[in-house]
Amino acid sequence: MRDVSIIGIGQTKVGEHWDKSLKELATDAILAAIKDAQTDRVDSLYIGNMLSGELTGQEHLGALVSDFAGLRGVEAVKIEAACGSGAAALRIGYMAVAGELADFVLVAGVEKMTDKPGEQVTAALAMAADGDYEAQSGMSFVAINALLMQRYMYEYGVKHQDFAPFAVNAHRNAVNNPYAMFPFPVTAEDFKKSKMIADPVNLLDSSPVCDGAAAVVLCPAEAARRFSEHPVRIRASAIATDTLALHDRRDLLGLQGAALSAVKAYHQAGLGPQDMDLFEVHDAFTIMSVLSLEACGFAERGCGTRLGLEGEIAIGGRIPITTMGGLKARGHPVGATGMYQIVEVVEQLRGQAGKNQVPDARVGMAQNIGGSGATVITTILESMD
Amino acid sequence: MRDVSIIGIGQTKVGEHWDKSLKELATDAILAAIKDAQTDRVDSLYIGNMLSGELTGQEHLGALVSDFAGLRGVEAVKIEAACGSGAAALRIGYMAVAGELADFVLVAGVEKMTDKPGEQVTAALAMAADGDYEAQSGMSFVAINALLMQRYMYEYGVKHQDFAPFAVNAHRNAVNNPYAMFPFPVTAEDFKKSKMIADPVNLLDSSPVCDGAAAVVLCPAEAARRFSEHPVRIRASAIATDTLALHDRRDLLGLQGAALSAVKAYHQAGLGPQDMDLFEVHDAFTIMSVLSLEACGFAERGCGTRLGLEGEIAIGGRIPITTMGGLKARGHPVGATGMYQIVEVVEQLRGQAGKNQVPDARVGMAQNIGGSGATVITTILESMD
Repeated sequence: MRDVSIIGIGQTKVGEHWDKSLKELATDAILAAIKDAQTDRVDSLYIGNMLSGELTGQEHLGALVSDFAGLRGVEAVKIEAACGSGAAALRIGYMAVAGELADFVLVAGVEKMTDKPGEQVTAALAMAADGDYEAQSGMSFVAINALLMQRYMYEYGVKHQDFAPFAVNAHRNAVNNPYAMFPFPVTAEDFKKSKMIADPVNLLDSSPVCDGAAAVVLCPAEAARRFSEHPVRIRASAIATDTLALHDRRDLLGLQGAALSAVKAYHQAGLGPQDMDLFEVHDAFTIMSVLSLEACGFAERGCGTRLGLEGEIAIGGRIPITTMGGLKARGHPVGATGMYQIVEVVEQLRGQAGKNQVPDARVGMAQNIGGSGATVITTILESMD
Repeated sequence: MRDVSIIGIGQTKVGEHWDKSLKELATDAILAAIKDAQTDRVDSLYIGNMLSGELTGQEHLGALVSDFAGLRGVEAVKIEAACGSGAAALRIGYMAVAGELADFVLVAGVEKMTDKPGEQVTAALAMAADGDYEAQSGMSFVAINALLMQRYMYEYGVKHQDFAPFAVNAHRNAVNNPYAMFPFPVTAEDFKKSKMIADPVNLLDSSPVCDGAAAVVLCPAEAARRFSEHPVRIRASAIATDTLALHDRRDLLGLQGAALSAVKAYHQAGLGPQDMDLFEVHDAFTIMSVLSLEACGFAERGCGTRLGLEGEIAIGGRIPITTMGGLKARGHPVGATGMYQIVEVVEQLRGQAGKNQVPDARVGMAQNIGGSGATVITTILESMD
């Protein structure tokens, strides 16, 4: 095995791209990453995507996108792990380079969700849940997260308003991200008055349905400086799984898939939560941020909301999260999200995060979650500067 | 990189499994493979599947199936490359072990197609074609293959009846395969009288819609003898791509994705077509067998049908194909097909193919094709006896 680096990044603005097809979005991100990497050599392409079949009637994205992006002939497949598809594709690309099966690998995440009516998108997303026990009973992902949040509030005596800082922080950071879907601030008062969706989850607890694509170019670390002034090393890339259905979990609020994934990543990197300068958390819902922070060792069980209330999640705080807006305010095009997180950590480690720059950021972590915690991919990145 | 071996195989009967869910089918194959491998150690699971979202309303198969199969927690994702999903998943599993990222890897292919009406399945399968130019125009995969067959017959002056030996051979071999969907013989006369589907493709040119799952256990070759009396080494595993749409191909009948995939595999293995004792070909339609045989160097361009007419594709012939019935008569549960091919080559190389045993088989090849040739995975296996 050899070390792997990221030498190019690309992303599209997140939003409602009614004028662009799925393959056009993916190609925009891919060509930007190739340009950034200053090389057009690509051995293979791994595409993270969840819903292209259900929402655009197109599977077989590997070959389709590689042809459209000018890479006809290369090895290419689609990787699916629900909302964790993006970082899962990165894990496969990482394996290819680390294991010396390829030298230059493109990894892209893409999703196009806004061409269809909302109820169809909600039903499509429910395919990430257990069909026999959850989706068949009419449970959407908002409902699943509402159950987790209800239980969390009951178990730890936490108020709903205690989750407000996660939405406020994400929106504050999105203001300076030109790729964000919602680049405007919200206040704790806005959160309080926000429309209820599934008690206690309100609109500002929730990430939006949207379109987007993000991509990176990987190569062996030893060659990285030839292609990038600020290469970033992948110190760890780890996947762990848990049950799809909540009722099958041994520890409902423990998010064991996230904990196992983080422990594997910490072990690979020889690092721990105390070494992270920032953490791109999977804030599909505010409760998911809190559970993820706790599972990864950034807070004790039941204490995750305090990180928000005490300002520790802001840039300049102990563990800055959602530094470019997160799923909440940058947006959550599901199969692309994991790759947006990676691109954003790279921006931070390169010192290219502009007004949102985490001072002296050298090591960053991203955690991408499929379903309500059934597939969890943890990636740890380090600046090679 | 290190050598990789197959130490366990498992498969379900192919057919209409109305009493089994997708995860049950996959688990049956997985547990059979684990039992065959005489180990229950599994580091990760890669699942090849194309249509679980569209036809069963369930994505996120990696975590779902690993939990149901008793492997909760392991790294697990779904790999999609249309009808090439099965062997594409094998390629990813091969990468993990070859690159030393995992030691024991399970690869499964699964598809459940018969719970839905035929027209819905036909539309779902068309998601493997180019949505903008083929599927949107109402072209099904039978129609796409009919265009290829028409052109082939025109270009090379071949009669439709010349394709009959491919169907006859597949059905003859399926008779002795307890897992085959259609274990009965057909004659050239049956072929002649067979119902037309899309001129010139008739019923006996075509593989059936069906359900099934197949799986293998991989481990480093150096450890393989501890778990299997007849381990099989993966000499090559290669993916290449081409355009989805026929009209974009540089050479319509050249099947360039298949040629490139085969050349990559031959190069990896240091072997050529003359070294193959059998070839599990992707006979979704008889024309696809002929194009694949030519692209892989088993016949000159325009001469593929002669291999059938001269008996060379039969067991005992120069290059036995579809030795357990192929897609035509064993069946073609699309995302599982590539794994059935691998399982069948392993049976041959172990000397466990019963009445269909290819004498002294030591090296076998399988080619799994997504779409009409847009993703092609070539695998070369060798007995370690």
